[in-house]
Amino acid sequence: MSGIVVQRFERTPLADIAALAEFGVATIHEAQGRKGLLASHMRPIYAGAQAAGTAVTVSLPPGDNWMIHVAVEVCRPGDVLVVAPSAPCSDGYFGDLLATSLKAHGVRGLIMDAGVRDVATLAEMRFPVWSKAIWAQGTIKASLGSVNSPIICAGLRIEPGDVIVADDDGVVAVGRAAAPKVAEAAKKRIANEEEKRKRLAAGELSLDMYDMRDKLKKLGLEYR
Amino acid sequence: MSGIVVQRFERTPLADIAALAEFGVATIHEAQGRKGLLASHMRPIYAGAQAAGTAVTVSLPPGDNWMIHVAVEVCRPGDVLVVAPSAPCSDGYFGDLLATSLKAHGVRGLIMDAGVRDVATLAEMRFPVWSKAIWAQGTIKASLGSVNSPIICAGLRIEPGDVIVADDDGVVAVGRAAAPKVAEAAKKRIANEEEKRKRLAAGELSLDMYDMRDKLKKLGLEYR
Amino acid sequence: MSGIVVQRFERTPLADIAALAEFGVATIHEAQGRKGLLASHMRPIYAGAQAAGTAVTVSLPPGDNWMIHVAVEVCRPGDVLVVAPSAPCSDGYFGDLLATSLKAHGVRGLIMDAGVRDVATLAEMRFPVWSKAIWAQGTIKASLGSVNSPIICAGLRIEPGDVIVADDDGVVAVGRAAAPKVAEAAKKRIANEEEKRKRLAAGELSLDMYDMRDKLKKLGLEYR
Amino acid sequence: MSGIVVQRFERTPLADIAALAEFGVATIHEAQGRKGLLASHMRPIYAGAQAAGTAVTVSLPPGDNWMIHVAVEVCRPGDVLVVAPSAPCSDGYFGDLLATSLKAHGVRGLIMDAGVRDVATLAEMRFPVWSKAIWAQGTIKASLGSVNSPIICAGLRIEPGDVIVADDDGVVAVGRAAAPKVAEAAKKRIANEEEKRKRLAAGELSLDMYDMRDKLKKLGLEYR
Amino acid sequence: MSGIVVQRFERTPLADIAALAEFGVATIHEAQGRKGLLASHMRPIYAGAQAAGTAVTVSLPPGDNWMIHVAVEVCRPGDVLVVAPSAPCSDGYFGDLLATSLKAHGVRGLIMDAGVRDVATLAEMRFPVWSKAIWAQGTIKASLGSVNSPIICAGLRIEPGDVIVADDDGVVAVGRAAAPKVAEAAKKRIANEEEKRKRLAAGELSLDMYDMRDKLKKLGLEYR
Amino acid sequence: MSGIVVQRFERTPLADIAALAEFGVATIHEAQGRKGLLASHMRPIYAGAQAAGTAVTVSLPPGDNWMIHVAVEVCRPGDVLVVAPSAPCSDGYFGDLLATSLKAHGVRGLIMDAGVRDVATLAEMRFPVWSKAIWAQGTIKASLGSVNSPIICAGLRIEPGDVIVADDDGVVAVGRAAAPKVAEAAKKRIANEEEKRKRLAAGELSLDMYDMRDKLKKLGLEYR
Repeated sequence: MSGIVVQRFERTPLADIAALAEFGVATIHEAQGRKGLLASHMRPIYAGAQAAGTAVTVSLPPGDNWMIHVAVEVCRPGDVLVVAPSAPCSDGYFGDLLATSLKAHGVRGLIMDAGVRDVATLAEMRFPVWSKAIWAQGTIKASLGSVNSPIICAGLRIEPGDVIVADDDGVVAVGRAAAPKVAEAAKKRIANEEEKRKRLAAGELSLDMYDMRDKLKKLGLEYR
Repeated sequence: MSGIVVQRFERTPLADIAALAEFGVATIHEAQGRKGLLASHMRPIYAGAQAAGTAVTVSLPPGDNWMIHVAVEVCRPGDVLVVAPSAPCSDGYFGDLLATSLKAHGVRGLIMDAGVRDVATLAEMRFPVWSKAIWAQGTIKASLGSVNSPIICAGLRIEPGDVIVADDDGVVAVGRAAAPKVAEAAKKRIANEEEKRKRLAAGELSLDMYDMRDKLKKLGLEYR
Repeated sequence: MSGIVVQRFERTPLADIAALAEFGVATIHEAQGRKGLLASHMRPIYAGAQAAGTAVTVSLPPGDNWMIHVAVEVCRPGDVLVVAPSAPCSDGYFGDLLATSLKAHGVRGLIMDAGVRDVATLAEMRFPVWSKAIWAQGTIKASLGSVNSPIICAGLRIEPGDVIVADDDGVVAVGRAAAPKVAEAAKKRIANEEEKRKRLAAGELSLDMYDMRDKLKKLGLEYR
Repeated sequence: MSGIVVQRFERTPLADIAALAEFGVATIHEAQGRKGLLASHMRPIYAGAQAAGTAVTVSLPPGDNWMIHVAVEVCRPGDVLVVAPSAPCSDGYFGDLLATSLKAHGVRGLIMDAGVRDVATLAEMRFPVWSKAIWAQGTIKASLGSVNSPIICAGLRIEPGDVIVADDDGVVAVGRAAAPKVAEAAKKRIANEEEKRKRLAAGELSLDMYDMRDKLKKLGLEYR
Repeated sequence: MSGIVVQRFERTPLADIAALAEFGVATIHEAQGRKGLLASHMRPIYAGAQAAGTAVTVSLPPGDNWMIHVAVEVCRPGDVLVVAPSAPCSDGYFGDLLATSLKAHGVRGLIMDAGVRDVATLAEMRFPVWSKAIWAQGTIKASLGSVNSPIICAGLRIEPGDVIVADDDGVVAVGRAAAPKVAEAAKKRIANEEEKRKRLAAGELSLDMYDMRDKLKKLGLEYR
Repeated sequence: MSGIVVQRFERTPLADIAALAEFGVATIHEAQGRKGLLASHMRPIYAGAQAAGTAVTVSLPPGDNWMIHVAVEVCRPGDVLVVAPSAPCSDGYFGDLLATSLKAHGVRGLIMDAGVRDVATLAEMRFPVWSKAIWAQGTIKASLGSVNSPIICAGLRIEPGDVIVADDDGVVAVGRAAAPKVAEAAKKRIANEEEKRKRLAAGELSLDMYDMRDKLKKLGLEYR
């Protein structure tokens, strides 16, 4: 699929994104049945980074960032760029110039299964990035990859147009069709947790709150 | 030892904890003869995190956090929860609801040789956590483990009731019986360092301050 | 080369250091032809750390920091200490006492391909350190190494007197002779980038700005 | 997709498998445009292991091998079992009893992105396995996963019925539809290589054989 | 506990060792309730390596193998040397001279949570070794450690006199008191497996053999 | 230094190579003062691999093996090719065609700080290779690197013409000028070891053979 730029694809509606953006990554991951997480090596470049948007996917060679330049043109406000090299790489594919360009086109963040650089400036710009590494090592512009093919990023398959939500806990993807249902489930979960938080803060035990004592006893838990 | 919850065990007295809590992890580790450190992959979830307390130990299966719920009931004010999975795992075993519950029972922090999540909220709550990973990946509640058996956590054996002190430099454990002696040794060390710090700040060389020149010469050190 | 301390060597002039210190690590790395970077595992102990100076190099055994004490005497204002163990090691070789001593002698920072400790104090002192690990594990003073021999640190060969520049993106070294030329190239690069940043911020595509469309077409890039 | 066993799916015809089985993993990977490889941590448990067949895919929880037992029933002669845990895990999911059972049903090998055990017996049986780890750590039978959903295994998406070919160089997957074309391309590649091998063995330089000198000169290669 | 050599300690009787030596590591690990395994990075230096004996434990500094020389004197026929550095290290602590010495004293193998060297000769001698690394990097003889203190080796606490059994699947330890009971359990497990192996080889499904279908159905497993 | 091929450089005389080739890597490393080893991740692709020769060095981009083709022409009988990518990479840069070509020109082996492929064929050909990874992932031919510049390979600086010796314990380099002296030292060491081996095999303790008891006593070693 190298050498292809897909310009038209169906994006998750921005209203669905907004509904999901109210929740954290852990909540969304639970709400869609404990799936959709990228691997744990994907970390934000500054504490408190947050982003929610529609995936524009980029596959590119190790050490070559040309396709990111190609992808900018395809982005629309509300997108999040999701980039994966075709072989493991920690080079600094992305810096503040590309971030300036993405920001000018309304892109909300970057998910990069490789390295990034200029992170002090990126943090100042509050342009949120999740990456595998931070490294000044530069890249070249010599070979093609693809834009908006389905890609595997940090162990998860991402389709263009999927929802991406990212925060301090990592990065989660939600399929376009499932977005409204997942947002609904997340809402219920949070409402439910609010109530629980109060009871736990008052000292109630989750053992009692969830009626776990019987099940534990049946499994043979023994107190000494 | 799976399926056992030990409710009664001897804790290090809180006065001994308080005596140790005045020192950093590096100092305590040196004061007890350069031992007692957990592995270097145990990192605080926010800069400046600090905790000192008595260990309540939890051993549990990979991807299953049920025993943490069981452990809360056994905790007393001044405890630190120390948790190790029975096989390596980066799942997010622990989040803000459990932290709310532990806080309500006076628990001072969490040492987790696996992953945690909701770290933005945990940092806001100033609930200190040291972990191997940060990851939203959820866990189930299906299998038993143990509470307050001796465990191996991040390469160190921890007995329930041991002292745990943790800061930006990592996590150190001190045995119950040794605590007063280690606190005493740490106190001397710090007093001693204060004096040295002044001399070093004034430009004196540690080579002279520690009388190292002769030893280095005997070993054959050559200046060119 | 163990057991040797080289006291005299040619340092890059401080004016050349000052010229380079105006630029970030990524810029300098690009300006000298995309080379000179230490490996990506070298990370600052606090966000925003910055240092630029002349390398004083230390090679020492795993778990033994004696040669750092020896090196202090050789340091001059404007130096950066660059330390590499002779076998991989994460021990905490360096803490606040040594930092106090280095600071008193005008040393601007530490590059340590191993562990450091007392990082909360180091951050408070604003003594910048880049290291492979943070760990309280102490070291001994028993064996010799060398000071100001050429060393391999984090995969790069460093000569005493080389320029070291470090920031959030990592650590770059520049040879003494090349420093003025690299500073010149960096200056041009930044001037050039300023102009580009404005155009990108206004929404211009890098595809057009760099005239990439033709080259991509020739390589066979296909839009769908 | 947890809790689902897909019994019917289209397999790549065994004749197509046979056509591909004549080639090594590196050749097939090149023949389909340099893609389809699982990550480099997937290693054979004995030197010389070889397998080619149709993928039956299994997704299962960390530390729980129940779904492998479920999958056996779905396997047919010519299949290769491809197993991935839902979170990273090195436990020994698979041993000689399961291998005996798979062998009895004509299964040709196992691709396991986790650990296996009983490897001495597996090697004696010549049951080929590629895995991330070798470890005796046992697993439980408590939770559901899925059989014959598409899975991500060692960084690659695998569909049930895909071709799997594995040897000392790793593991490659080929989509069902593409199999005949890839076999054809591999055949040409090998024929072509045979010719080249003779010329290279006679001392001819690949620089000349591939007419590379001009291109290198244009890029600025300089001989000194 | 540095600087101590414990000469007298209770060893598991050799008859108990012999009883356990008939079983593989995976079987023993299961027979004692799925515990006692060293971490998965402990690998044999040649395929088919096997050892069973009583642990003589050594703790030593990184890069210093002096205490192994001290330990030889304490070894008796039937022992297995178990060595762990006090900080992570891959140096080659052990080679063919030490193996010759250990063999002369009836030692049956080495478990080394660090590096070893001369592995071609060790393999020729059939002296079995399990280690974290193979590396020619030499060590010094400068600092003390301990012999026959309890140690943590590859994540497991080992007491002197414990049973060590090791094969291609890794390394397992069994406490002295538990040895006869574990051997008994292993014997039953193997007898039981023999029967199962035949039925599985005849094509019977483990789903039926273990009556799993009902439990899976209750959990909601769905066939499509 | 990209884009340069150095054709003339001084090689270590083949007689010096032959003198060193009689010894193992561990012996040579000790004989030159415990230095010169490449990192422990460099492993032979088959057990028993051995090579000794003069280094021809190659630096090349991640994922691009063009410069290996360029290097063949510069090789002479007795050389060993030493290759390092400019950024970390596990791609399969080298396979049996290149090995055929190198063999035709008398090259004795390959040291590759990246991945290789076709390892079954390479083992059959008995073409010895030490690498960081084995992986079928192919590379391109698009960008320049250098031949016979000094390079850093697996953490060690290698000059063209240096001696390379490699076996099951890893890879060691010896500078051209030092080769005769190191061979002499290795010879003495081996002679010395032969004597020791006999005494150790007869049961003599190294504690006595090396007169270690006094030194250990002075350091405070205590027997209990």
